[in-house]
Amino acid sequence: MDFTLAKRLALKNDSKVVLMILDGLGGIPGGPEGKTELEVAATPNLDSLAREGICGLHQPIGTGITPGSGPAHISVFGYDPIKHQVGRGVLAALGLNFDLKDGDVAARGNFCTVDENGLITDRRAGRIPTDKNKELLELLGAIKIPGVEIFLDTVKEHRFLLVLRGEELSGDIEDTDPQAVGKKTLEPVAKSAAASKTVGLVKQFISQAAEILKDQSPANMLTLRGFASRPDWPTLGDVWGVKAGAIAAYPMYRGVAKLVGMDVIDTGAELEDEFDTLEKRWNDYDFFFVHIKPTDSAGEDGDYDKKVSIIERVDKQIPRLMALEPGAIIITGDHSTPSVMKAHSWHPVPALIWSERCRPDTVQTFGERACVTGALGPRLPGYDLIPLAMANAERLEKFGA
Amino acid sequence: MDFTLAKRLALKNDSKVVLMILDGLGGIPGGPEGKTELEVAATPNLDSLAREGICGLHQPIGTGITPGSGPAHISVFGYDPIKHQVGRGVLAALGLNFDLKDGDVAARGNFCTVDENGLITDRRAGRIPTDKNKELLELLGAIKIPGVEIFLDTVKEHRFLLVLRGEELSGDIEDTDPQAVGKKTLEPVAKSAAASKTVGLVKQFISQAAEILKDQSPANMLTLRGFASRPDWPTLGDVWGVKAGAIAAYPMYRGVAKLVGMDVIDTGAELEDEFDTLEKRWNDYDFFFVHIKPTDSAGEDGDYDKKVSIIERVDKQIPRLMALEPGAIIITGDHSTPSVMKAHSWHPVPALIWSERCRPDTVQTFGERACVTGALGPRLPGYDLIPLAMANAERLEKFGA
Repeated sequence: MDFTLAKRLALKNDSKVVLMILDGLGGIPGGPEGKTELEVAATPNLDSLAREGICGLHQPIGTGITPGSGPAHISVFGYDPIKHQVGRGVLAALGLNFDLKDGDVAARGNFCTVDENGLITDRRAGRIPTDKNKELLELLGAIKIPGVEIFLDTVKEHRFLLVLRGEELSGDIEDTDPQAVGKKTLEPVAKSAAASKTVGLVKQFISQAAEILKDQSPANMLTLRGFASRPDWPTLGDVWGVKAGAIAAYPMYRGVAKLVGMDVIDTGAELEDEFDTLEKRWNDYDFFFVHIKPTDSAGEDGDYDKKVSIIERVDKQIPRLMALEPGAIIITGDHSTPSVMKAHSWHPVPALIWSERCRPDTVQTFGERACVTGALGPRLPGYDLIPLAMANAERLEKFGA
Repeated sequence: MDFTLAKRLALKNDSKVVLMILDGLGGIPGGPEGKTELEVAATPNLDSLAREGICGLHQPIGTGITPGSGPAHISVFGYDPIKHQVGRGVLAALGLNFDLKDGDVAARGNFCTVDENGLITDRRAGRIPTDKNKELLELLGAIKIPGVEIFLDTVKEHRFLLVLRGEELSGDIEDTDPQAVGKKTLEPVAKSAAASKTVGLVKQFISQAAEILKDQSPANMLTLRGFASRPDWPTLGDVWGVKAGAIAAYPMYRGVAKLVGMDVIDTGAELEDEFDTLEKRWNDYDFFFVHIKPTDSAGEDGDYDKKVSIIERVDKQIPRLMALEPGAIIITGDHSTPSVMKAHSWHPVPALIWSERCRPDTVQTFGERACVTGALGPRLPGYDLIPLAMANAERLEKFGA
């Protein structure tokens, strides 16, 4: 829904909306029975919601498009992901709780290994331990560039965050990662004239860093990706009039939630902890985003059985969610991560919406094939889920007389 | 379909197209069997059309949006309702057969009751009898404002029409109805500079009216809503080359039909009278809009059984329609009005298209759940129905060679 229209129609009431994302939920057939992970999992509680609510499959970006995690979440948060694109640097900053100011330029750095000719031999420097990453960033702290403040922070393993703060900076810069071994790291290149000053600063940063890192092993070089400034988007509060909280154990998803104005709520690492947090903080928010990471991790690892077991663990928690008496809930994934593919995929993602105001369809179980004939249809735009949940929570007034 | 394209493709032939709208047709489960009104109604004739034709559900405005009657009809008439918005005042004028000129500004007035402090105690003045409304408008006929002609006409009960005619008027003015009791009526406010002169005139109107009404009871004040001028849209004749007639017992729907260039055909008050009219005037038009109001009225009243019985009455008339040998018919609603909600809702609306050229789907009965798996899909934009009916009546030529 267009945000101007959404703002015009949004109503406040006491009902709460919960968006639960099982990351990478969708699958394709695998395992002994030729079923997907969701189809084979024993999910009596999700199946019951599927019968009482409406089901379908959503496409986060568009037909045939395999989504990255950032844009997939942005879509499911109700934002057209083509119109709302943001660099990886910004997501990394938000995930680290870095207080990104307007005009800051952030990039995601990777330590890598280069040979004596400067050709990359390992794009991830053997995934160095996170402690090693911290040590290296301390060394890089010596870098000084006139007219710009430099912030460095460890993400995890070989990944770090670079933020430049100064006047007239722009993130309109190409990645320096050639995305292949056997090649040199790329020179930073401005995509538009506005970034030429920043490119000069980035070149100085890379050259000083290369000098500092050259005798280290295995992390003797770095690449920079996803240069970007914080976008100025309307928040979920601006659009729908809700106070929104994010329950997410993994930094990236806290970051993307902050980008749309959600508060990040402290929570434990396990998915069951997230349900504890939901219960504890139920009275503090109108809208909750609950992010379940390990479905995706299992899919990425090609671990079909583990993905099944994670889905079953989530199903066991559903009665706790329902006991809170939500006004409307969305249960879906941000994208598909079929374990037989060990990667994100373009396959539409199972989705269900439940409220007392649903007009149930004939779907009896929550699974990919069953959802095809549901009332949401087989290819709902991902960003239509929240508007529909808001309607189901009776948080939208009539359009016109 | 884009109108430029429609004009290019439209062909004339002898086939007739009928758009039959059962107002508020869609429902959600209610009643003893957990079915909707349409699902429980005995509709052998509609079911037969569902088997021979194609079914689905349409969304008049968009996912999650509850339509008002005006925009819902504008959509089903084939106009994108976001791009074709019109104020309530214009719809009221057209519904009363008021000959609105270009540049006139119309508003819907409500008589209301205010207490000694000017706070609204009843936004509808106890729904005064229509005769009382006429008496009050005669009194308000004494209002004189230099440089502007004032027209007043009774709609029904507490509702009336105000039209201002003069130079350089604009309807870009906020409503004066605060939409709540216990508040004062609002001052008219210009939404753009073009309306500042008109706002001055409206203030004079309100102040003179307040003086005239102050000793009346219970209608001692008024509010004004939906200031607007007549939009300049292409007509159904312009777009599709059809001569279009509207058979609608209720003024509002005659008004919205006139807005898209339909002739309003005299008809009786009962739905069976509308089928008489259709038979009688069959040779005079290429396109008929037949509007059945009481499905919506029953839904708004929460009268599940009455809505069922109205649907069954319509079903009994269907053989009379088919005996006329239409080229293509659309049978649908403008929006859903579930009787358990006693209000319009966002739920997609059952729709069927029948012609001898349909490729039937597997839908066997005309009902909400059955339509989900029909060939029209579960979320067809409402404004796609007429283009598809025109195609089915073989009134559209090939696009490109």
